[in-house]
Amino acid sequence: MKLALATQALAAAVLAAGVALTPVVSHAQSTPQQAAQKSERHRLVLQVSENDPANWNLALNNAENVQQALGKDNVQVEIVAYGPGLNMLKGESKVAGRLNAALDNNVSLLACGTTMRKMKLTKADLAGGVNVVPGGVVHIMQRQSEGWNYVKP
Amino acid sequence: MKLALATQALAAAVLAAGVALTPVVSHAQSTPQQAAQKSERHRLVLQVSENDPANWNLALNNAENVQQALGKDNVQVEIVAYGPGLNMLKGESKVAGRLNAALDNNVSLLACGTTMRKMKLTKADLAGGVNVVPGGVVHIMQRQSEGWNYVKP
Amino acid sequence: MKLALATQALAAAVLAAGVALTPVVSHAQSTPQQAAQKSERHRLVLQVSENDPANWNLALNNAENVQQALGKDNVQVEIVAYGPGLNMLKGESKVAGRLNAALDNNVSLLACGTTMRKMKLTKADLAGGVNVVPGGVVHIMQRQSEGWNYVKP
Repeated sequence: MKLALATQALAAAVLAAGVALTPVVSHAQSTPQQAAQKSERHRLVLQVSENDPANWNLALNNAENVQQALGKDNVQVEIVAYGPGLNMLKGESKVAGRLNAALDNNVSLLACGTTMRKMKLTKADLAGGVNVVPGGVVHIMQRQSEGWNYVKP
Repeated sequence: MKLALATQALAAAVLAAGVALTPVVSHAQSTPQQAAQKSERHRLVLQVSENDPANWNLALNNAENVQQALGKDNVQVEIVAYGPGLNMLKGESKVAGRLNAALDNNVSLLACGTTMRKMKLTKADLAGGVNVVPGGVVHIMQRQSEGWNYVKP
Repeated sequence: MKLALATQALAAAVLAAGVALTPVVSHAQSTPQQAAQKSERHRLVLQVSENDPANWNLALNNAENVQQALGKDNVQVEIVAYGPGLNMLKGESKVAGRLNAALDNNVSLLACGTTMRKMKLTKADLAGGVNVVPGGVVHIMQRQSEGWNYVKP
């Protein structure tokens, strides 16, 4: 009986350790179970900070290819545009058509609020469906700390 | 009594797991307590590896905006310049004035020692207050492994 | 006897927590033992996504300098080329000579299969010794999730 209690407590201890570990699972080499869990949890934040349509197209290609490779439902993709890169997300952007396609595929398009203020832009200047985050770099930092992958195309 | 001992040992086991986990807290989704801890521990390493004053200004803007958003005392910011980016940190740099302002705001400016050797520069060629790390990329690797966020503007 | 069993089980619990933690060791501040383990486990993925020989040379310099700083046997280095960066790894690349030297030093050169398909290239178009990964960005994501450091020169 004592042992049974102790075993129960042990199970609780192992469980506690397990729960505490959960958040870092995405950084770990995986057991089959974790691999299954992982397969649903790919997360990618792409940074656009250049005023260059070729770079914007590359970022959009990256989003598209990652979705095709991993399965659209298995990966969350965000494109964060800040600094000179913000022009990508303006209504008059040279990639405006592709922005719509990306949104249709559930790619999040996020504009840096700090850059908008500096460029005297409002949400009305952005392409439809673009969301604004307070700060682009702070948002990227937060995503990294949450375990998202980060790529600057 | 036996159970009491076992329980004590269990507590030790849980504690041990907890201690071992501490270093990865910054990667974890947070309990309120951890969130409080986290708020004081934002850390960002910015990479400058381009010979382009527009890129240097972008990196300096990023440092400034992150400090304003998170509170200067809640975030450590380093700018690591290497390769062609090292020119940013020379005494004659086009952003020399902004370097002083960044240093005043406790942004660390770090020059790559390997690049300096290749460019035959000494510390006297750098702006005042700039520190030298043996290798820029190795320093960035180390910071990432310590849990710092990484952004290449 | 019961306590002995419980203690044995406790040891197993602690061990289980320890084993589960192993994969994130590279993110943790280290005990001496872990530091020793770490010294053999530096891992760096370098991204090349620009069609610019200066950028290619910078990436190759980065690989070289990291190996010299950490010891060639203590660090794994991969260069992943995708998008416009894929030209770096073609047989006719302007850095073809340096590619051979990198391979001799055990730097892995990885070409993005998705980009190759878009550019209608086959493995025969690539420099000898280059390997192909299905997708460059997905490969970088995977490496990050495995705890590799990531630098875009």
